[in-house]
Amino acid sequence: MDELIEMIRDFDAARDWNQFHSPKNLAMALSVEVAELVEIFQWMSEEESTQLSRDKQTRLMEEIGDVMIYLVNLSDKFGINPITAAKKKLKLNEVKYPSHITRGSARKYSEY
Amino acid sequence: MDELIEMIRDFDAARDWNQFHSPKNLAMALSVEVAELVEIFQWMSEEESTQLSRDKQTRLMEEIGDVMIYLVNLSDKFGINPITAAKKKLKLNEVKYPSHITRGSARKYSEY
Amino acid sequence: MDELIEMIRDFDAARDWNQFHSPKNLAMALSVEVAELVEIFQWMSEEESTQLSRDKQTRLMEEIGDVMIYLVNLSDKFGINPITAAKKKLKLNEVKYPSHITRGSARKYSEY
Amino acid sequence: MDELIEMIRDFDAARDWNQFHSPKNLAMALSVEVAELVEIFQWMSEEESTQLSRDKQTRLMEEIGDVMIYLVNLSDKFGINPITAAKKKLKLNEVKYPSHITRGSARKYSEY
Repeated sequence: MDELIEMIRDFDAARDWNQFHSPKNLAMALSVEVAELVEIFQWMSEEESTQLSRDKQTRLMEEIGDVMIYLVNLSDKFGINPITAAKKKLKLNEVKYPSHITRGSARKYSEY
Repeated sequence: MDELIEMIRDFDAARDWNQFHSPKNLAMALSVEVAELVEIFQWMSEEESTQLSRDKQTRLMEEIGDVMIYLVNLSDKFGINPITAAKKKLKLNEVKYPSHITRGSARKYSEY
Repeated sequence: MDELIEMIRDFDAARDWNQFHSPKNLAMALSVEVAELVEIFQWMSEEESTQLSRDKQTRLMEEIGDVMIYLVNLSDKFGINPITAAKKKLKLNEVKYPSHITRGSARKYSEY
Repeated sequence: MDELIEMIRDFDAARDWNQFHSPKNLAMALSVEVAELVEIFQWMSEEESTQLSRDKQTRLMEEIGDVMIYLVNLSDKFGINPITAAKKKLKLNEVKYPSHITRGSARKYSEY
């Protein structure tokens, strides 16, 4: 992760792109990249989405890369490490959705 | 990263939630979480978005955590490591946006 | 539609909210509202999404209302009527996806 | 609006596309189209977003058309008219954000 953060800082510095990279703009760009990832799955059934062709898997990996780049870039503006943030959030979720209550429920998150 | 992947697998297994976690559904959930992150910045100026209150920073960290959880979960369905994917994509981007040409350009990505 | 446009203009003028309603901000707000609409369907199967409870239908109508308000508001900044824009786009799509070729194809849009 | 609804029904029937158009899939497609609209504004300042070139305005009109097509299509699955839904929501918002309290406030929606 530290290496990736360095690579992103260098990439932006070499292009003088920090002037465009306000947190607001990075959040917006993140949402655009996520939509490109969603587009891969958009007319598939759930079943089909588990069995991507090699071409689609390559495209998926590129879109995951783009999403990750913007997520890390935005996080870095506030000194946040996305892995640490995810671990903390998982611990909060363990309290919010106790496994003995939510187990296998189709109602899932939204209705607890 | 490996530790986070394990935590997410355990979390879902304990709740029997893999039945809901088709790649299609995870991509959709990722887009919903990103919108919650975007919402933090939505009526701010770019300048204001660089100076978040402590409360907003806490909320941002939680949203980054949620986005990261779904991104890692989706990636794991295809054996993709988001950090590796991001590094590969940065290298492709170095070819696509050479620093000596794109330096400081407001036209940025979209028009090259 | 003309009546709706007038209502939105009056609503914003009464609150002096046009200062926040740059096209960029309205586009961002539109994306956040659409995610709230997506959230209604997010863990449902496609089949379930066709049979919403009365409560979810009420919520859906509110989210459709919010999406429409921002879409009309943004369009109004450029003198665009969304209905006219949709009709024009449908005509372009008729050329792009001729019915005798695309009929019933699961490949659909993305691969033509 | 009635004419647009008819056009969309005919378009889908001629291509036998209703099989792909579950509400869940239409909501997902709507989010992808909105991101294409957001992309137009993504690296602009708010000021720049008010002064689009003729080319960008044409592109914006097409994206507004696409968003409207999916919004009307989804609404039609539940017999909802987006204009009626927007008017109802505006009336709810008048109660939620009274003009004498919210006038000109930068805190806007999120904090009331």
